[in-house]
Amino acid sequence: MSTGDAPRRAVVLLSGGLDSSTAAFAARADGCEVHAVSISYGQRAEAELDAAARIATAVGARTHRVVTVDLRALGGSALTDDIDVPKDRSDEQIGAGIPVTYVPARNTVFLSVALAAAETVGAEAIYIGVNALDYSGYPDCRPEFLAAFEQVAATGTKQGVGGRPVAIRAPLLSFTKADIVRRGVELDVPFEHTLSCYDPVKSGESWVHCGRCDACRLRAKGFAEAGVMDPAPHA
Amino acid sequence: MSTGDAPRRAVVLLSGGLDSSTAAFAARADGCEVHAVSISYGQRAEAELDAAARIATAVGARTHRVVTVDLRALGGSALTDDIDVPKDRSDEQIGAGIPVTYVPARNTVFLSVALAAAETVGAEAIYIGVNALDYSGYPDCRPEFLAAFEQVAATGTKQGVGGRPVAIRAPLLSFTKADIVRRGVELDVPFEHTLSCYDPVKSGESWVHCGRCDACRLRAKGFAEAGVMDPAPHA
Repeated sequence: MSTGDAPRRAVVLLSGGLDSSTAAFAARADGCEVHAVSISYGQRAEAELDAAARIATAVGARTHRVVTVDLRALGGSALTDDIDVPKDRSDEQIGAGIPVTYVPARNTVFLSVALAAAETVGAEAIYIGVNALDYSGYPDCRPEFLAAFEQVAATGTKQGVGGRPVAIRAPLLSFTKADIVRRGVELDVPFEHTLSCYDPVKSGESWVHCGRCDACRLRAKGFAEAGVMDPAPHA
Repeated sequence: MSTGDAPRRAVVLLSGGLDSSTAAFAARADGCEVHAVSISYGQRAEAELDAAARIATAVGARTHRVVTVDLRALGGSALTDDIDVPKDRSDEQIGAGIPVTYVPARNTVFLSVALAAAETVGAEAIYIGVNALDYSGYPDCRPEFLAAFEQVAATGTKQGVGGRPVAIRAPLLSFTKADIVRRGVELDVPFEHTLSCYDPVKSGESWVHCGRCDACRLRAKGFAEAGVMDPAPHA
């Protein structure tokens, strides 16, 4: 990934979860005008989009685009199919191998849509909240993948060919979940508006964390290790 | 791009135009089981999908998936916005610079969806009908872009990490349109079912070529130079 001078305008891939929300506030802290892009990919967690909209507002995003990519037409993941989301798994189970919730080529698809958005708004960077430590099972969360995608941006766009390629920024890449919580506290991320859950539960008018899926367990562990109370509602 | 042993199973990005249809037949000639993927990206030319379905059947595709990617949410192109498609342009005008019909990061988005499909069906290759000669204005039709994307496939997927990365095959890359027509004749591509037009016209039950947009003019030039009669209906 690129380091160096901060870009002035950035596309942020925003799911409304802890990581992407912290990445959005990191982009703002870097001095960027934020253009949020959320992907609606046929996930059961449409609740994510509500959270993304709250965070886009909170971070003062200049625009927030929701792009539909219907990965259900491909199948192959518990997040897009009707496979049950695993619950109550141990840390060892969560850390072992590639999880059933893996969406094929997800970050490639997400970054490609973000790249299209970056060309459209003239952004110099894409911020993505991936981290390689807590979730080593996803191949598309690794630095070599992000470096490869940056080459795609450099060779496959008008901007790249014109000499100003879009940089891929992953400010949380080497962070643990606890590190992300600490960084979020520093950046004043409104954690209460974020939603990390793979299988959220309706509670009155809003969606809340199930507390039992892998994403909820990693989130809880991160807050606990950072010694911070999670203000987001749970079932 | 990769050369070497032919893959046994391939995803083909199929728009139903001359190039992608010829690429599909090339994949079959290479001995591949063909899995066709068409992208519905909010283009006005929904007629393309009809052509893609006809070609998928003609080539004997094992599956044909249509994946919606709503690039209209981003704007920025005559193919997705309500900008007029240019008509009756000269060869010089067509060849000069990046055309208004350029869709931001289109081939990156298309290849990323194809990569997700390749992971889902266990394909060893993605065939894409890009060619660099006739349409030098598109940055994402160049060999360096395709090589960069192959690195994304190698680093960002389970298959790639497992040691069998998905190859990107662009069998028409160095072909002129006339070369593609000649290759299509060799491969028995049913040209009458293909549709290349950016702005097709309804004629009875079916859609036909307008004959005046850049895509139609390039197609006509290719058939003329190859000395082949184009059997596809025109307005």
